[in-house]
Amino acid sequence: MVIRLGLAQIDITVGDINGNVEKVLTYIDMAKKNDVDILVFPELTITGYPPEDLLLRLDFIRENLKALEKVAVATKGLETLVLLGFVDYDGEIYNSAAILKNGKIAGKYHKMHLPNYSVFDEKRYFAPGNKPVIIEHAGLKIGVNICEDLWVPTGPINDQCIAGANLIVNLSASPFCVNKWRSRLNMLLTRAMEYSAIIAYCNIIGGQDELVFDGRSMLVTPEGKHHIASAFEEELFVVDVDPFVSTRYNLYEGKRKGYSKVSELETVRLSISGKLGIKKTPPAKPDESRWEEEAFKALVLGLKDYVRKNGFKKVALGLSGGMDSSLVACIASEALGSDNVIGVLMPSEFTSKESVEDATLLAKNLAINKLTISIKEVYHSYLNALETVFKNTKTDVTEENIQARIRGNYLMALSNKFGWLILATGNKSEIATGYATLYGDMAGGIAVIKDVYKTEVYALAKYFNEVKGREIIPKRVFDKAPSAELKPDQRDQDTLPPYEILDSILKLYIEEGLSQTEIVEHGYGEEVVGFVLKLLQRNEYKRRQGAPGIKISRRAFGKDWRMPITNGYRR
Amino acid sequence: MVIRLGLAQIDITVGDINGNVEKVLTYIDMAKKNDVDILVFPELTITGYPPEDLLLRLDFIRENLKALEKVAVATKGLETLVLLGFVDYDGEIYNSAAILKNGKIAGKYHKMHLPNYSVFDEKRYFAPGNKPVIIEHAGLKIGVNICEDLWVPTGPINDQCIAGANLIVNLSASPFCVNKWRSRLNMLLTRAMEYSAIIAYCNIIGGQDELVFDGRSMLVTPEGKHHIASAFEEELFVVDVDPFVSTRYNLYEGKRKGYSKVSELETVRLSISGKLGIKKTPPAKPDESRWEEEAFKALVLGLKDYVRKNGFKKVALGLSGGMDSSLVACIASEALGSDNVIGVLMPSEFTSKESVEDATLLAKNLAINKLTISIKEVYHSYLNALETVFKNTKTDVTEENIQARIRGNYLMALSNKFGWLILATGNKSEIATGYATLYGDMAGGIAVIKDVYKTEVYALAKYFNEVKGREIIPKRVFDKAPSAELKPDQRDQDTLPPYEILDSILKLYIEEGLSQTEIVEHGYGEEVVGFVLKLLQRNEYKRRQGAPGIKISRRAFGKDWRMPITNGYRR
Repeated sequence: MVIRLGLAQIDITVGDINGNVEKVLTYIDMAKKNDVDILVFPELTITGYPPEDLLLRLDFIRENLKALEKVAVATKGLETLVLLGFVDYDGEIYNSAAILKNGKIAGKYHKMHLPNYSVFDEKRYFAPGNKPVIIEHAGLKIGVNICEDLWVPTGPINDQCIAGANLIVNLSASPFCVNKWRSRLNMLLTRAMEYSAIIAYCNIIGGQDELVFDGRSMLVTPEGKHHIASAFEEELFVVDVDPFVSTRYNLYEGKRKGYSKVSELETVRLSISGKLGIKKTPPAKPDESRWEEEAFKALVLGLKDYVRKNGFKKVALGLSGGMDSSLVACIASEALGSDNVIGVLMPSEFTSKESVEDATLLAKNLAINKLTISIKEVYHSYLNALETVFKNTKTDVTEENIQARIRGNYLMALSNKFGWLILATGNKSEIATGYATLYGDMAGGIAVIKDVYKTEVYALAKYFNEVKGREIIPKRVFDKAPSAELKPDQRDQDTLPPYEILDSILKLYIEEGLSQTEIVEHGYGEEVVGFVLKLLQRNEYKRRQGAPGIKISRRAFGKDWRMPITNGYRR
Repeated sequence: MVIRLGLAQIDITVGDINGNVEKVLTYIDMAKKNDVDILVFPELTITGYPPEDLLLRLDFIRENLKALEKVAVATKGLETLVLLGFVDYDGEIYNSAAILKNGKIAGKYHKMHLPNYSVFDEKRYFAPGNKPVIIEHAGLKIGVNICEDLWVPTGPINDQCIAGANLIVNLSASPFCVNKWRSRLNMLLTRAMEYSAIIAYCNIIGGQDELVFDGRSMLVTPEGKHHIASAFEEELFVVDVDPFVSTRYNLYEGKRKGYSKVSELETVRLSISGKLGIKKTPPAKPDESRWEEEAFKALVLGLKDYVRKNGFKKVALGLSGGMDSSLVACIASEALGSDNVIGVLMPSEFTSKESVEDATLLAKNLAINKLTISIKEVYHSYLNALETVFKNTKTDVTEENIQARIRGNYLMALSNKFGWLILATGNKSEIATGYATLYGDMAGGIAVIKDVYKTEVYALAKYFNEVKGREIIPKRVFDKAPSAELKPDQRDQDTLPPYEILDSILKLYIEEGLSQTEIVEHGYGEEVVGFVLKLLQRNEYKRRQGAPGIKISRRAFGKDWRMPITNGYRR
């Protein structure tokens, strides 16, 4: 018996209940036209993910329940079974899946395993469910669960499979980081084989503040076959499966039964639908993209959705002729179209001729808009105004920061006057070490490459030029030594270790959680490690006030990094 | 039999394990000299509270365990029983209390109830304990538990009292908000009566980023007697009690037994100590302070500790002659001494003569340092620089923000040059509605009155003058209409509703969680409510980049307010 599954990996907006419901209804209609038997939406489709403290508002929960009723009504007369994420409420709230059939809410499932690590705070809001659910539909037994439920080896899938589930459906909202999709695929294949189950997994796509969701919904079988939907694109992913053929490989039956006893499993019985689909989607190849490709796409989608969902159309950024702002301009052009990008050159007396040329050439190559506003006169007016107060002091980083903050003020003035969103261009190595000026080059609505180390910035820039088949980012930008150009003959490497070393140390500390001693044991000099970690720890106050950035690494500065500012720990 | 309890309500620093241990050793010595039988430290004494993502670092956990050993060794030869908060580790980590006696760790307790709401994220880090603990010491049975454990009506105290505990000791880290101490006292009295138990409750004092801990450690008896330690001050609070006299009122025995069965209670047996104390502290009166007094003290301590613990000595702030900066200057003078405060006047062409006079008079009254740096010329240099780009546009909020950001740039330049910490002066009403300039007057290391509504700012200012017995803040500052003075004849109330109405609406939304409709039902006009909530929602991006402020309300912008920036919800 062949079943047609539709996985609706859609781009929804947190809080925009009406807009999300409109999109759900469109996809239900599309599913109907494509003879889909079972249509699956992602986790918390109605509210968007993550709704954060909106979940503390009872009026918001009620709106979401009304919206669910509206979708339920829209399934009247359809043969399609619809599984939809929403927030259920009975005094406590639950991260839930609704089972919609022929105009009715035929059943509900409450997520049992709530993630509360990394960027997740689900235990702040939700009570855990305590009953696995099985849907009887079209002669099938369908086990439904939500995201984290499936990452737990003996989650509800255990009871569902013991109760004879032929198909497991998982509603998910799994944020992107580089290579995460491989873990997901491996996890799904493990569960499928372990439980001898066919698993249909539906993930969100789209950007939500610092998170990007990459979609890549999947269908996996116990035999290790897998079908993967597009990455970073909305899609109704349709797959035809025959659960009874697949589940004959029941190798793990014995082991499975050993796990735990089925205690309070709930069964939702539905009438059997009529005609079933017959087409089959050919198995997709596993995604073989390079990390540069997926990181770049994630940044493009993250930026695009941040701009669009916050009601902006155009963005502006300072173009220095350096690599960071060049890469951000490329990402912005891809995300929004070059017409919607304004590159602002803000030269000072320390800006080299080459930098102006490189920035100009980049703007030309990308066909973005260009503005030039000198900071020279304004800078000197600051020096005049502060002359008395600064009498008998030496020139230091103060004067450099004044320049960066004049540029920040210019950009924000353009934002205020013309409604452009400002893009901050700092990279992760800079944000980590405080090698960026708070309220200066850190100013902006979103920090596009905040989670990209400097060495990775170069790699992404190289990748971009390769894809475009020409030197959009001028060769000289790759070749010259990085410099903030805030004083004569300044080079980043005058005050920071070489970026290869810096980035390696930072990754070991931030992403691997190693201590100073352990990093030294990895072969880095004690002095350089101590220096880097001191910079990292001292600049927490800056990060606290930085613009949100798009997470592409395992651990980004943001919801994923909750370090105290006041912190006496020095290792 | 009289027991002498010492509650060490100390000011510790997150991460500063060595410093915290030094303080603990000092207090152990002090307790010894005062013949204390049982010395109690607050929750997570060794690490400070809350350690946040430091808890994800294994090296940090190990340092804390080493520190615990060090403290244990220091109890060798003492008769005092010491209860100390630390992080235990067995693969998982636990928020724990160590029972130290005569050089040994005689037992450990793992917190069973982990708060994960409001400012708390304990489930992000800790595994819950599963065993209540009783200590047998000096003929007593002492039940030990940690903070939230006691807020849960049937927490470990239930099993401990069934097992015959004569005394309950709670190690706490309960952050301040106005009137919170009354809830604590009521909760403690309820538990004491309900379980017929004497409860000793030891709380931290001090500031840690946005949190302030107010101390007010307490001893309560089933008869409703209570002794309260100082608020906002370090103290070894010593109380003598006779547990056997108090526990004779065993009225609730029957009810208590009904709660739950004692399953896995662990008993730590200790040798009985020798001589017991005999002095008794007279019962303290309940704290009758006005909210202004406690809010002011909280702001002073919060600022003082932020400055000190982050290695600063002097602070600077913009003095506008308005109420917000006047109040912040007063708080700073109290916290740091007037020598360490620099008031910076940054007049523009829109600054009134009265404002300059008021700011000057305030600085004189407080005896703080004063600097004047005009922004006029710099402002005009910006207008010149932007003239071409702004051609054919109308003057609007852009030009106002440029001025605010010049001031931000000045203050940060002073900070960079002289190492002064900058105080942001925005109030909660402003931060809520976005009536403040990002990177302008929002710039600074800490936003002292970020959690104080404008109407409350006036009340605190009035209170301050009353306490000082003279008009430190000049009368005219109270009388004149609030204005940002960023354009001619500007008044806050030209664009915002009257502050009384604004603040009421904001409180109903932020602190009571009411919806737009419900606020209108409270008697506020639909239009004004819609306007205020639109401002609140639209300005989330500014708050995300704002300096941390000191929490004094039930719900502060910060860890307590995790709203998405990208947010389609509009009610």
